[in-house]
Amino acid sequence: MAYELYYWDGLQGRGEFVRLALEEAQAAYVDVARGEKTDSLGIGAMMAKLDSRSDAYPPFAPPFLKDGDLLIPQTANILFYLGPKLSLAPRDEGLRYVANGLQLTIADLVTEVHDTHHPIASGLYYEDQKGEAKARSADFLAHRMPKFLGYFERVLVQNPSGPQHMAGDTLTYVDLSIFQIVEGLRYAFPKATKHLADHYPHIVALRDAVAARPNIAAYLASPRRLPFNETGIFRHYPELDRSAR
Amino acid sequence: MAYELYYWDGLQGRGEFVRLALEEAQAAYVDVARGEKTDSLGIGAMMAKLDSRSDAYPPFAPPFLKDGDLLIPQTANILFYLGPKLSLAPRDEGLRYVANGLQLTIADLVTEVHDTHHPIASGLYYEDQKGEAKARSADFLAHRMPKFLGYFERVLVQNPSGPQHMAGDTLTYVDLSIFQIVEGLRYAFPKATKHLADHYPHIVALRDAVAARPNIAAYLASPRRLPFNETGIFRHYPELDRSAR
Repeated sequence: MAYELYYWDGLQGRGEFVRLALEEAQAAYVDVARGEKTDSLGIGAMMAKLDSRSDAYPPFAPPFLKDGDLLIPQTANILFYLGPKLSLAPRDEGLRYVANGLQLTIADLVTEVHDTHHPIASGLYYEDQKGEAKARSADFLAHRMPKFLGYFERVLVQNPSGPQHMAGDTLTYVDLSIFQIVEGLRYAFPKATKHLADHYPHIVALRDAVAARPNIAAYLASPRRLPFNETGIFRHYPELDRSAR
Repeated sequence: MAYELYYWDGLQGRGEFVRLALEEAQAAYVDVARGEKTDSLGIGAMMAKLDSRSDAYPPFAPPFLKDGDLLIPQTANILFYLGPKLSLAPRDEGLRYVANGLQLTIADLVTEVHDTHHPIASGLYYEDQKGEAKARSADFLAHRMPKFLGYFERVLVQNPSGPQHMAGDTLTYVDLSIFQIVEGLRYAFPKATKHLADHYPHIVALRDAVAARPNIAAYLASPRRLPFNETGIFRHYPELDRSAR
């Protein structure tokens, strides 16, 4: 039975980390909110799960994944669950917790990226918190982005199996997520990320290797890969960018 | 062999969610950063792991747990790993992913609590972002805290096994974390949380049940339970509180 992925239509967002894994593995999945109401899909089908006043263990927010009777929320949790089934997790069980720890650190970075344009309230418009967004973005680009990327570069360099992968010696969903992080940061902050390869050569090499994988390349060229836009996590507001590193 | 928990000394912080599980289970553990340098413990021992330029898979930030050769970072990941070993996870494997999803939603709430006092830059003093902190706190208390607590209350009410536990019919680490969330929010925002029991009766009942457990009560009365203070996640700045709900 096909996996059912529930995430907002119209943006990549956090759902994209799950899509990349499903696409790389060529797994059968339905992107529920992007479907048609006549097929019992669409945004209404997603909201029914979110707003249910009777279901056991309703999700707090998208993305969530339905696999048979099981409803699994939270991006990193979905990937932890799917990883072994899609052959995108380390074989070693201990390393699976290492991979999950790395994915959760990626999730922390994603949250901080979101807060660069929404530092005060996720329910308010960007325009209503632009001044604060400039201050938070300046700090993000000066301190936080280098801290996260420097860390991921170090994980690659110190990987006992070599710098081709984040965890172990095979491709995992963490590698796919690193690709997405680089794509997103380059979209949101083209000036600040202009010289990324000089500072983080192994991260950029991993990004390039993922982009060249046939299933990922086919996905990126498909209409299923929505372009980045200013409703997602990674948004390009030129006034928040700076010519940094 | 005793577990080694690595977390900053002097505050509860994110490490406290792990401590509560270890204490409830009466597991043997060493709180490394609180130990003595002469025992090869202390903050230096923790920084050596964080700053290592040779270890495989160094952690990004505390807390992290060492179990033999395995170093596990990220609070929810540590609890996912420890849960079954401490008999604090659901027996059903599917429910373990449900529990992890709930714990990750608690982690999201914790991050938002942190950002009430540090909305612009975690590296700057609170005093340097007090105006923005007031705006973010107002939004947190008006919108985000009710959204999270309303959700957790709903999970309890809709639990097919009854509202005594967050996942399944036995105590899990998620229940312990709900206790900590209530304690922290009450410390940080005593006015805004004054009538918590009226709005979220099952959450408060769960908090009370956890507090009454013998191992937890003994821990709370021990010197190992540090008081909340203004270096932790939950900080009491009266100007950020309001008489809400």
